[in-house]
Amino acid sequence: MLLDVKELYKKIDCLMNKEVTLQGWIKNHRKQKEFGFIDFSDGTCFKHVQLVYDNKLDSFDEIQKYHIGCAITVFGEVVESQGSGQNFEIRVKSIKLEGDCPEDYPMQPKRHSNEFLREQAYLRPRVNLFQAVFRVRSTAAYAIHKFFQDKGFVYFHAPLITSSDCEGAGEMFQVTTLDLDRIAENGSVDYGKDFFGKQANLTVSGQLEAETFALAYKKTYTFGPTFRAENSNTKTHANEFWMIEPEMAFCDLAGDMDVMEEMLKYIVQYVLDNCKDEMEFFDKFVEKGLLDKLNKLVKSKFTRISHHDVITILKNAKVKWEFQPAYGEDIAREHEKYITEYFSGPVFITDWPKDIKAFYMKLNPDGETVAAVDLEVPGAGELMGGSQREDDYEKLVNRMKEMGIEVDEWYLNLRKFGGCYHSGFGMGFERLLIYLTGVENIRDVIPYPRTPGNCDY
Amino acid sequence: MLLDVKELYKKIDCLMNKEVTLQGWIKNHRKQKEFGFIDFSDGTCFKHVQLVYDNKLDSFDEIQKYHIGCAITVFGEVVESQGSGQNFEIRVKSIKLEGDCPEDYPMQPKRHSNEFLREQAYLRPRVNLFQAVFRVRSTAAYAIHKFFQDKGFVYFHAPLITSSDCEGAGEMFQVTTLDLDRIAENGSVDYGKDFFGKQANLTVSGQLEAETFALAYKKTYTFGPTFRAENSNTKTHANEFWMIEPEMAFCDLAGDMDVMEEMLKYIVQYVLDNCKDEMEFFDKFVEKGLLDKLNKLVKSKFTRISHHDVITILKNAKVKWEFQPAYGEDIAREHEKYITEYFSGPVFITDWPKDIKAFYMKLNPDGETVAAVDLEVPGAGELMGGSQREDDYEKLVNRMKEMGIEVDEWYLNLRKFGGCYHSGFGMGFERLLIYLTGVENIRDVIPYPRTPGNCDY
Repeated sequence: MLLDVKELYKKIDCLMNKEVTLQGWIKNHRKQKEFGFIDFSDGTCFKHVQLVYDNKLDSFDEIQKYHIGCAITVFGEVVESQGSGQNFEIRVKSIKLEGDCPEDYPMQPKRHSNEFLREQAYLRPRVNLFQAVFRVRSTAAYAIHKFFQDKGFVYFHAPLITSSDCEGAGEMFQVTTLDLDRIAENGSVDYGKDFFGKQANLTVSGQLEAETFALAYKKTYTFGPTFRAENSNTKTHANEFWMIEPEMAFCDLAGDMDVMEEMLKYIVQYVLDNCKDEMEFFDKFVEKGLLDKLNKLVKSKFTRISHHDVITILKNAKVKWEFQPAYGEDIAREHEKYITEYFSGPVFITDWPKDIKAFYMKLNPDGETVAAVDLEVPGAGELMGGSQREDDYEKLVNRMKEMGIEVDEWYLNLRKFGGCYHSGFGMGFERLLIYLTGVENIRDVIPYPRTPGNCDY
Repeated sequence: MLLDVKELYKKIDCLMNKEVTLQGWIKNHRKQKEFGFIDFSDGTCFKHVQLVYDNKLDSFDEIQKYHIGCAITVFGEVVESQGSGQNFEIRVKSIKLEGDCPEDYPMQPKRHSNEFLREQAYLRPRVNLFQAVFRVRSTAAYAIHKFFQDKGFVYFHAPLITSSDCEGAGEMFQVTTLDLDRIAENGSVDYGKDFFGKQANLTVSGQLEAETFALAYKKTYTFGPTFRAENSNTKTHANEFWMIEPEMAFCDLAGDMDVMEEMLKYIVQYVLDNCKDEMEFFDKFVEKGLLDKLNKLVKSKFTRISHHDVITILKNAKVKWEFQPAYGEDIAREHEKYITEYFSGPVFITDWPKDIKAFYMKLNPDGETVAAVDLEVPGAGELMGGSQREDDYEKLVNRMKEMGIEVDEWYLNLRKFGGCYHSGFGMGFERLLIYLTGVENIRDVIPYPRTPGNCDY
């Protein structure tokens, strides 16, 4: 019976003493005079399988030559394990070499630095850490789709090439088919001859477009790539990353927070349930206490408190701040950390000073703050940001004038043509993965990360 | 009780004579002296709800003023319908106007041309046709994820900005942060100063990178945007579109076809099951016979036949061809159509002449054909294409030399480091949607399509 290792573990009780065929790769190979032991994995689950062969096999000498990394098809019998560490093993009857691997194969079974593995990005999903990271990435992505689809949200594909700029400020990548050498030669740029007849960029957010879907379907979400041409080389910045941007009509800031909280708990629980082995690995080798942290999150009630009241708490704290907390101003990392510890759990900070937030956020009756929210999570910092959107046409136009921002007419028209109170939020997918896995560098949760100066693969 | 229209229909048996609150939009408004009838929808399902109000309400005169397109919150009682066409209606107790809509609102309840609606792309999901199209888009996307996740495939996010070119031939969009005006001024281009230190483009396919995941996880799939800078203004070309690219290790061409067939049937059945109202609408108003076509597909057994044998059939056909079928050459639309009619169902055409296929396809023992497959579907033409990949290092290098193609070393190394026979395929998501909905123009199945000269929103 040909089957995946994942199925083998699932149905092991019915497969004992049965013959099976497996296909995968040699991860390690211990050779003895009369026996050989192959650590085998096919990538369908985190667990490996031990293959045992002995010198009664005609092909004993041949098999002993197989290197680490080889692709093989194994035919053998499932038997109770003689050794410790596993309940069963495969007694090999024959092995077919599907693809050889030289002895200088870089992914030898020893500890590699993440920096080295980043340089071998195309091979790193073969080692335990990244095998786990990218399966969690896949599982978390599915959890997000499942959460929203089960709730009736319509999945919206925002355009990637765009002529609008959501944030109003943008370090954006330009997209062009103009011949740059010819521009240099001619000494002039004619955007009329560019592919779209005008300047075009890669999107920094699908939110504005998502609002058009929220006002048609009530509930929508994006899940797609976004791009920022920021020249920052930090552990948390990549220039191409995936974002989730839900948007809900007839939803105020409180409703927005309800969805944020429910979504985060759902994803965490889904990953805990469906990636048990991977999560235990992270807990053991990447971030001690990870499972406790996540299990606690799922059971916690998120605090909701205004920016004003947060500043009051910070001011009253007997702490020597590097940055002095101030009403009307942003809060620093040290403040975020303090406040989640203060409440011993995730904190929604609401009603931010308007001058440090985006133009599209709804002005509160005080005229000074906007109905914005940041979610601060212990050990992750700001994990999501959202707001109720300004749905008053005049107020929106005034705010844009004040801030010197222009947007396309269609965005304003959404406030004229049956607009209603509506809210949404954004979550960087990689930021979530850093939180879920304990892996610290964003370069290690994206298969092929793009950062300044790096665009391999 | 506040609920979505979707829930209302689902639980209608328990809700009769109960009070409910609904939030959504006025789609039509018929006013009589003593009564008013509002055609109401909240976008959570295709079905609308009829609201009835009478002049016993204090707000009767006020409500009569509400225009088509207004956003409202309705409080009323679910009652058996007096009129025909629906089983229940809402007897209004009060309506709160959430957002007004002027009388010149473009989406009046009359027949609009698709061309007009394309110009109002941000409003078109509010009309029946596009409301249905983009919900089917969302549902089909989810079906794809569900299909692959249930089978243990790992979802892989291919990089969008890339320095490689999968097809070896590429009309690609360039991505840059260089200041074009400065290039014109300086008279020279220095890619060393570009964001990534070299020329970068938008990807045309994630396949090559997906192969790295297949050789680590056995089974992987991409589902993301891809870009082609083709200057073609046809009904089936867009410059930004979404692709699904599964890739499987230890999988030959036959196994590839198994997955293609199973996947397509799964998606079609899932959409038929989960978008009943939408699909009936398409069947009635967009493509007569659509449901028959799709139901037939799900039950059919796909034919598998070689390109050579297809040419023989075409040559023997008593048809006056515009293009003469020839061994060793591509087949035309008229041939595709004939062959699906000949077999009265979907046809996998396999083993194509190597010179009309990509460099990475596995050379067959005859030395003339490659293990490639196109799936031809009645009413859709070529819906997917796939191949077994060349896993022989030498043959791959030779073929690249013959074709004058260069790829990065990592791609070749996949054949050295435990490579194995593996296969994959690609499906354009919009092509699938055209097939599923009967809508003819790709511009009408993408929320904000990008075509030459068009990059609005």
